[in-house]
Amino acid sequence: MTRNLVLRFRSPDRPGIIATVAPLLTAHGCDIRAAEVYGDPDTGHFFSRMELTSPIGPDRLAALIAPAAADLSLDCDLKDLARKQKVLIAVSKFGHCLVDLIHKTEIGQLPIEIVGVVSNHETMRKLVEWHGLPYHHLPMADGKAAQEARFLSIIEESGAELTVLARYMQILSDEFSTSLEGRCINIHHSFLPSFKGAKPYHQAHARGVKIIGATAHFVTADLDEGPIIEQDVRRVSHSVTADEMVAIGREIEASVLSRAVRWHAEHRIFANASKTVVL
Amino acid sequence: MTRNLVLRFRSPDRPGIIATVAPLLTAHGCDIRAAEVYGDPDTGHFFSRMELTSPIGPDRLAALIAPAAADLSLDCDLKDLARKQKVLIAVSKFGHCLVDLIHKTEIGQLPIEIVGVVSNHETMRKLVEWHGLPYHHLPMADGKAAQEARFLSIIEESGAELTVLARYMQILSDEFSTSLEGRCINIHHSFLPSFKGAKPYHQAHARGVKIIGATAHFVTADLDEGPIIEQDVRRVSHSVTADEMVAIGREIEASVLSRAVRWHAEHRIFANASKTVVL
Amino acid sequence: MTRNLVLRFRSPDRPGIIATVAPLLTAHGCDIRAAEVYGDPDTGHFFSRMELTSPIGPDRLAALIAPAAADLSLDCDLKDLARKQKVLIAVSKFGHCLVDLIHKTEIGQLPIEIVGVVSNHETMRKLVEWHGLPYHHLPMADGKAAQEARFLSIIEESGAELTVLARYMQILSDEFSTSLEGRCINIHHSFLPSFKGAKPYHQAHARGVKIIGATAHFVTADLDEGPIIEQDVRRVSHSVTADEMVAIGREIEASVLSRAVRWHAEHRIFANASKTVVL
Amino acid sequence: MTRNLVLRFRSPDRPGIIATVAPLLTAHGCDIRAAEVYGDPDTGHFFSRMELTSPIGPDRLAALIAPAAADLSLDCDLKDLARKQKVLIAVSKFGHCLVDLIHKTEIGQLPIEIVGVVSNHETMRKLVEWHGLPYHHLPMADGKAAQEARFLSIIEESGAELTVLARYMQILSDEFSTSLEGRCINIHHSFLPSFKGAKPYHQAHARGVKIIGATAHFVTADLDEGPIIEQDVRRVSHSVTADEMVAIGREIEASVLSRAVRWHAEHRIFANASKTVVL
Repeated sequence: MTRNLVLRFRSPDRPGIIATVAPLLTAHGCDIRAAEVYGDPDTGHFFSRMELTSPIGPDRLAALIAPAAADLSLDCDLKDLARKQKVLIAVSKFGHCLVDLIHKTEIGQLPIEIVGVVSNHETMRKLVEWHGLPYHHLPMADGKAAQEARFLSIIEESGAELTVLARYMQILSDEFSTSLEGRCINIHHSFLPSFKGAKPYHQAHARGVKIIGATAHFVTADLDEGPIIEQDVRRVSHSVTADEMVAIGREIEASVLSRAVRWHAEHRIFANASKTVVL
Repeated sequence: MTRNLVLRFRSPDRPGIIATVAPLLTAHGCDIRAAEVYGDPDTGHFFSRMELTSPIGPDRLAALIAPAAADLSLDCDLKDLARKQKVLIAVSKFGHCLVDLIHKTEIGQLPIEIVGVVSNHETMRKLVEWHGLPYHHLPMADGKAAQEARFLSIIEESGAELTVLARYMQILSDEFSTSLEGRCINIHHSFLPSFKGAKPYHQAHARGVKIIGATAHFVTADLDEGPIIEQDVRRVSHSVTADEMVAIGREIEASVLSRAVRWHAEHRIFANASKTVVL
Repeated sequence: MTRNLVLRFRSPDRPGIIATVAPLLTAHGCDIRAAEVYGDPDTGHFFSRMELTSPIGPDRLAALIAPAAADLSLDCDLKDLARKQKVLIAVSKFGHCLVDLIHKTEIGQLPIEIVGVVSNHETMRKLVEWHGLPYHHLPMADGKAAQEARFLSIIEESGAELTVLARYMQILSDEFSTSLEGRCINIHHSFLPSFKGAKPYHQAHARGVKIIGATAHFVTADLDEGPIIEQDVRRVSHSVTADEMVAIGREIEASVLSRAVRWHAEHRIFANASKTVVL
Repeated sequence: MTRNLVLRFRSPDRPGIIATVAPLLTAHGCDIRAAEVYGDPDTGHFFSRMELTSPIGPDRLAALIAPAAADLSLDCDLKDLARKQKVLIAVSKFGHCLVDLIHKTEIGQLPIEIVGVVSNHETMRKLVEWHGLPYHHLPMADGKAAQEARFLSIIEESGAELTVLARYMQILSDEFSTSLEGRCINIHHSFLPSFKGAKPYHQAHARGVKIIGATAHFVTADLDEGPIIEQDVRRVSHSVTADEMVAIGREIEASVLSRAVRWHAEHRIFANASKTVVL
């Protein structure tokens, strides 16, 4: 049986990586269908994502190329494209990103399996359960440490490979953020220029911005400052009220977040120091 | 002879403004061809821009509506659309915005008359003089106070109604900025999120932004923080180098600045507290 | 009680319209909060949309200005902004636009009341009924004439002021289209250049377009050629498959359609010969 | 001396291409710095663009890999990135694209050498010669066949690797177009939907489009229908006149065309049946 695999690797930049890896794949009957290679001149890292057809499964192939990978200091990953990525979604009271993610998953547009929804509120339970998904209410009243401990247990028990903060309005502890590095995506508003503090859309409105946007990024201990995955924007005029800006912002947030989730599920994103490479 | 005029006014928000102004215009033989009225619920200001055909000139018409305008506390302005706005351009070493403004003026796309170019360098002299425009070299070596004094004299002597900082890389004194409030437009880069300090494109590149942009704004004493007139953006990917981002930024800067200049020359822009209304 | 009304009118272009209407409104205690007036130099029509505060209701105010409106040949309309527009949605098997419209209505982002959903399939029944909305299955097997007759009855009985074809994959008869002129909005894909015939995304993919988009327009007898209300686009690259283009297209379709519906519900759209004016 | 080269190839899709090429490059001391590989599932072609550092020049390296390339049926190309591509520009009376290309070349933003400008008019001579470039006036009065023969001679004599039709308003003969296949880029307006015939911006205006754009494409015998290289768009409203749409269109045309020229000069574009692959 032929499988469609993704081989990803990163390595310190050195000559001959492709020259070593490509013949090895061929020797094991694999065929490179698409590839993108990027050597970052700033960070000195080398990134590659290849789509392969393979006569053998990802684990066996990984074992076969492991010695060469070790020689080349490749940090290497093999994924089966037929396996949907398990995703846990966290949400508070606003459902626009959640609804969008569920709908796109149901119609086959997102190659993910939603393993559950976590929330610090009960607001979204009815909707989530109607779609046949488990809903975990984790109230903050239990104390932040206990709440985050339960959140982490759910991530672990559900087997979630990615946690998506889909307008989850809680500041995460540094420990929580750090433990999810590279497997937790957040969405937040963004503007030209940026605004700090509460009610950012209202601040942006007061300043008369003509462009509003949203940024999907990896969660790091430095909240809202993690490596950027995707951004998008929409024009607004002086007659758009702050509330309408919030509404427009919702649509951008949902769209940007779903693109970031799709790229993650397709194994396209590499963290690269303070930024990302999307291949 | 029928003229095409623009009547602009702002006023404290109160009932009956249009109901008073519109019949007055009709009584003097004017016809309202287009109008936009905007009452800002936040600042409590009322703004209006009307395009009129008029059998009489702007000065006479202004005199005829002056008493009513005083009664209504209208801050009122009448402009002849056939008269091109006089514009002085300031530039340093980078010519991309300057070239764009000159070309669009020459082909009739910008309703302005460029009355001269000011620069703290000689770099652009040859180009400017080839287009038959006066070039004023104001070196910083003369001292900032003296240099700005000469700059202001040139604005006055040339009759410039608008001064455009087309990548003029000097920080203006508060006095200079304040004296040009509402008649000086600057262009600068802008990003999601924003970056402070030198080499902003390089900072944005290090952070891996996916969107870069530019903002045209009125100059105020608080440089780069004046009321926003126009903004635009372009997408970039991880493989775009910092230098390429600078190049893409140039194109956005030229485009955004020329739109802001055109709107000013068409008398569309109103300052409104910390923002603008563009009608 | 003060109400927020919208006064819309169109008229043959002639002097003094605003000069007559504005004082009349003031005389009846109304205050113009925002206004946009546009005289189309090509079609010779004059359009205006005003937001008023009014001490009296729309019907009484309409009666009071009726004589003047008749004198000026104004085609005039008064709407209460507190009243939500009744909207009937038609859908076939694809739910992306429907889901988006329902969600935005539920969170208060669309000022509409969805009075029901019509479909030539059963696919969406479960979802629609879960949201507490009536679902009308109108199978084509009944014959096109009978089916359209039932569709028109439902529009009439539900009191729908707007019918939205949210990916309703049936060609309408000329009679049906004509009877809904100005109160039926359709969404369809659009590309640069455009493609005729079946599987348009696949045609566009074969031609290697870099931009795909969607157009919301009024339905006329000339399907897909009615007056354009809104359009938007997204970039694609050579590696986007035709199926992915369909998926991206879905998101653009939902976004564009919801904007067109919102503008209609806010009474912003005027048909103007073969185009629209959105004030 | 280390050189920066681009190795491009296309081939019928078959296993083992990268596995053969990459070790060969390494064996000759080259290092792959960036690579993009794309196998088109529709056309069955395989495309690759690699940036290499190489201790030897492109001709010698090409000779060294020629036997393997022949074995693999690779259609293979090696370019030195330090060598600027020679470009001939053709223009009629409108200079917006020409001015933009010259300016971006002069400031080092386009890696090209402009070897001359061809025009069927004298309009642009003064500007072109001021920039120190040869201007060739090829009036149509000489007859189309003779005029095109002279045009082809100039291409040949100047050594132009790319001919850019920068608003060159002449329909080319099939022979002329065919002889320049893959090395001649044209820019034209494009809309949603598209419009045939004269004055397209005026047609689009009559239809009330909300989006206007431009397309850069390779010239083929089927004018305006060649493989698309790049497209972009801008929003317009009902109040934008047809003339303003022309003006906005100019800015998009210049921007899109310059991107297509840059990608060609960086050896990024592959023709792929009726479309392009840009790596």
